[in-house]
Amino acid sequence: FDVLSDRARELGLRLGAINPNLFQEPEYKLGSLCNPDPSVRRRAVEHIGECIDVAARVGSDAISLWLADGTNYPGQDSLAARRRRLLDALHEVYGALGENMELLVEYKLYEPAFYATDLADWGSALLVCQELGDRANVLVDLGHHAQGVNIEQIVSLLHGAGRLGGFHFNDRKYGDDDLIVGSIDPFQLFRIFYELVDAGAVESGVRLTIDQSHNVEAKIEAMIQSVLNLQEAYAKALLVDRAALAAAQAEGDVLAANRVLVDAFSTDVRPVCAKVREDLGASADPIAAFRASGYAERAASERAHGTAAAWL
Amino acid sequence: FDVLSDRARELGLRLGAINPNLFQEPEYKLGSLCNPDPSVRRRAVEHIGECIDVAARVGSDAISLWLADGTNYPGQDSLAARRRRLLDALHEVYGALGENMELLVEYKLYEPAFYATDLADWGSALLVCQELGDRANVLVDLGHHAQGVNIEQIVSLLHGAGRLGGFHFNDRKYGDDDLIVGSIDPFQLFRIFYELVDAGAVESGVRLTIDQSHNVEAKIEAMIQSVLNLQEAYAKALLVDRAALAAAQAEGDVLAANRVLVDAFSTDVRPVCAKVREDLGASADPIAAFRASGYAERAASERAHGTAAAWL
Amino acid sequence: FDVLSDRARELGLRLGAINPNLFQEPEYKLGSLCNPDPSVRRRAVEHIGECIDVAARVGSDAISLWLADGTNYPGQDSLAARRRRLLDALHEVYGALGENMELLVEYKLYEPAFYATDLADWGSALLVCQELGDRANVLVDLGHHAQGVNIEQIVSLLHGAGRLGGFHFNDRKYGDDDLIVGSIDPFQLFRIFYELVDAGAVESGVRLTIDQSHNVEAKIEAMIQSVLNLQEAYAKALLVDRAALAAAQAEGDVLAANRVLVDAFSTDVRPVCAKVREDLGASADPIAAFRASGYAERAASERAHGTAAAWL
Amino acid sequence: FDVLSDRARELGLRLGAINPNLFQEPEYKLGSLCNPDPSVRRRAVEHIGECIDVAARVGSDAISLWLADGTNYPGQDSLAARRRRLLDALHEVYGALGENMELLVEYKLYEPAFYATDLADWGSALLVCQELGDRANVLVDLGHHAQGVNIEQIVSLLHGAGRLGGFHFNDRKYGDDDLIVGSIDPFQLFRIFYELVDAGAVESGVRLTIDQSHNVEAKIEAMIQSVLNLQEAYAKALLVDRAALAAAQAEGDVLAANRVLVDAFSTDVRPVCAKVREDLGASADPIAAFRASGYAERAASERAHGTAAAWL
Repeated sequence: FDVLSDRARELGLRLGAINPNLFQEPEYKLGSLCNPDPSVRRRAVEHIGECIDVAARVGSDAISLWLADGTNYPGQDSLAARRRRLLDALHEVYGALGENMELLVEYKLYEPAFYATDLADWGSALLVCQELGDRANVLVDLGHHAQGVNIEQIVSLLHGAGRLGGFHFNDRKYGDDDLIVGSIDPFQLFRIFYELVDAGAVESGVRLTIDQSHNVEAKIEAMIQSVLNLQEAYAKALLVDRAALAAAQAEGDVLAANRVLVDAFSTDVRPVCAKVREDLGASADPIAAFRASGYAERAASERAHGTAAAWL
Repeated sequence: FDVLSDRARELGLRLGAINPNLFQEPEYKLGSLCNPDPSVRRRAVEHIGECIDVAARVGSDAISLWLADGTNYPGQDSLAARRRRLLDALHEVYGALGENMELLVEYKLYEPAFYATDLADWGSALLVCQELGDRANVLVDLGHHAQGVNIEQIVSLLHGAGRLGGFHFNDRKYGDDDLIVGSIDPFQLFRIFYELVDAGAVESGVRLTIDQSHNVEAKIEAMIQSVLNLQEAYAKALLVDRAALAAAQAEGDVLAANRVLVDAFSTDVRPVCAKVREDLGASADPIAAFRASGYAERAASERAHGTAAAWL
Repeated sequence: FDVLSDRARELGLRLGAINPNLFQEPEYKLGSLCNPDPSVRRRAVEHIGECIDVAARVGSDAISLWLADGTNYPGQDSLAARRRRLLDALHEVYGALGENMELLVEYKLYEPAFYATDLADWGSALLVCQELGDRANVLVDLGHHAQGVNIEQIVSLLHGAGRLGGFHFNDRKYGDDDLIVGSIDPFQLFRIFYELVDAGAVESGVRLTIDQSHNVEAKIEAMIQSVLNLQEAYAKALLVDRAALAAAQAEGDVLAANRVLVDAFSTDVRPVCAKVREDLGASADPIAAFRASGYAERAASERAHGTAAAWL
Repeated sequence: FDVLSDRARELGLRLGAINPNLFQEPEYKLGSLCNPDPSVRRRAVEHIGECIDVAARVGSDAISLWLADGTNYPGQDSLAARRRRLLDALHEVYGALGENMELLVEYKLYEPAFYATDLADWGSALLVCQELGDRANVLVDLGHHAQGVNIEQIVSLLHGAGRLGGFHFNDRKYGDDDLIVGSIDPFQLFRIFYELVDAGAVESGVRLTIDQSHNVEAKIEAMIQSVLNLQEAYAKALLVDRAALAAAQAEGDVLAANRVLVDAFSTDVRPVCAKVREDLGASADPIAAFRASGYAERAASERAHGTAAAWL
């Protein structure tokens, strides 16, 4: 752990949040913090406690909690009782946090629970954070909403309530597909960044992380592509002519206001993003640089077995 | 108004909530309480003020607020600014309520606003109620959620947070279809009533109202059918063997617990509901009684014009 | 009619399809071509027959059929019987078409019917067209699908089956919102145009029409915006480096192939579209030109009454 | 194989369809029959060919094909080219079928492919079947549709087109959750059975199979529960007073027609189903009998390892 911590300091990196894993053991089949069995809940709380210790040692200042808890069938468990168990356990977890540590509470509509997820939407997660205290905030994963839900509005609401903790960026067409950020709906990504810029959230420390899963595409390249897409969405959000936008909005000029926003999105920011990367000493075209480096091939050949590696 | 109020007293009826109408006037095109124009917001607040006066005069103790406010295009207005306007206006409205009056705040995913509804989900409405005070509660319309959302869980959460104000009962397959209660998903209706019974909500004064719209079917008959369906869902919810359910849940016996719940739903409660109606001096078969009464035909023939009447 | 027809010829316009209206009369409450009452079906067929006559007189070569037919409640009518009535009626309609006339069959998931729409999806419409003959084709309205459905794939399938008749362009976030084309998901619009270009559909006469409804925004300006958005989507689709795309696809290079497509979308085509408009003798900036013309204000003041006009 | 085949004959069972597995090998990462690499397509066709041989040997008369084929990113592959590859490969497969063998073609909205599934809906599967010939039919899995889609209508349409091959029964609230049949929406299950009875589909050999996946509940008990739920849905569908229904439908009496259908659903058929089971020599209460048998415990203890077994 100390090596990891030192290495991060050397690289000037801020260590990310620690994510306790409370879903892969069979004992968590009926839930972790919401499990009807008190001994399972005890073990889950203790596991998070260990994660808090790890976080303290490696210098991470956040615990990011996604619970797989929920039920698959109506009647399987009492929704109200599960909620009470959840709050009781989280009070204990929250009390064990270091003074400067933040608890990020993630929500998800469904999966792995199929009938009722214990933290299914932002309102449910926000209520929990309010109960716990000031250092509990909501984490938004772009793939965890019902179809048709307006995510940028949720971002705005959470920021307004002082509870926007961070993001798991990815994209999806249907479920929680964990595709490359902005690969399905780049305009939505831009609108989210517009809200983030508007709220000063990028500067104020909202945690922006990527949470993807790559099955058919080269994994590292996909991750680089996500970073590029995030840079472009951010650059476009910075380009919005805020004075013109505010003026059109105040006049109730619906179409003029919409055009001001869309103008920024329609702008090709790839050249300016490449310039910024170069100015920062990075590659103007990181995908080409990565492909030229031969890293993926080397990594694949060094691992004797593993189809996953072969897909790099 | 006084006639109305007296007549209600005579009939032993509790007068329902008053619903201000803030969407049909062209001035509300860009919103009522969230409108960018302060003079429109002013007029909307005043209109609600008049409704509060009416409520006081007729003896109603609640204002039920559904806002059509929202935006149709990204950038049309500032989501954060609209939220602030909404809260400012509602603070004023809340201050004008009579001491024993309740403010019900309804939410709806979309329509008439198509891009971002200002009160789009229960979390959004709950936050408003928390800001206002103890007499502001959330109203749940069964048709106002994204597809796949677990409504009985929302009911349980709102009750747990002490903010379950009432219901607009109806059913739908896709959007906000306002069909007969329980006509598309009777099992969901039963699960909602199970939560209501479990929470003691029916007795404690949660306002249970029907909000339907009938286009192709006989209106009064449809309303009677809805009442019958509500009675049956309630009766089934009362039938659940709570001790057996709690025992199976405590043991983590998923299927046994599910079966206890489903057993109540599978029971044919039509005879017992008919018996209860008879005991209360009502008709055992209200649909047959209504059809036999010839009321629909009389009402239709008495109205010289109006296709709506002809569809009774 | 003759005046209309002559004027269209003068302007070099191809007259659009004629759209029979079979939903606003109360007699169509239970359906038009699928109505259980044969006399209503008869009237509906006759009304379409009159539309065919009008089409012939004004020089239109297509009937575009959107049916509001469907049921609101399970059991209301036999799904199979309604289907047979639909096919019988459409055989008659098809037989009455002029030799060079095309029948466009539109589908829609829901609304106004809430339980079961008689033509609810593309498969349902395609089956009808196959039964009728070569001049019956499917019309795709971008707002008429369930959430999450891949529309560009439907376009590709219909073209592959030789049955892609045309489009009603618009956009939506949730239901059938009829917003400005490309205003919610411009990347989807681009992908649809990529399929159209790939299939040679623009040149081969697929009917590209706009079907929007503007409630809060200036109507004519909204329509101009839609045309601009269509031009940009088309321009971007033309920009795709097809050779590079085919090569990456053949190699199974998922990310390189995706990048080729996205590169075209990321390009700012507004300047080149403005140039093309100018070359065609139109305005480089049609929105500015329209606003400068004062047309909207003039039209509004000339109409004595009508809030709709006031919103131009 | 011969042992299996003989044992099935002894038990009087009709052997189910054979399901080729074309998704777990890494070579199928970019698809099986639609893969851009012809050698992968060749291997997939050959694998299905082997399955056809197995089917012939064990006496199964159907191949049931669910393809995991699709793409995760726009541009990844040509939708049209993939379609052509699919049809070419299936022509070959179809040609290799025994004379009395049926090909069942399944569709699924999404997963594992996230952007575009090659057979995403019933229309897409039906077109394939039409191309292949009379012995290719569509298989409906209840969990494979977009939210809000009317499945019983698809059943009716497929039957009307002579292409209803069979079912994978299960239930879901959101995605493809593979829960116990009828556990989330028992009224929908009943409506599907109403269509099946109406179409004479149960008698005519439509293949009714269960396709579930049990994670938190006892597996065998869950399967027994599914069979009970199917029996009850079937029994209720048989109870519908078809003459009364037809009369109300013919009169356009929406609510009376709906009531006839709902009356059957509201009936408690558990006693009559238990009676029928007893008359057939089976247990009146198969769940109780299974629990009493101790089979689950024995099977679990006999397997030295395996948490899955422990969850029986």
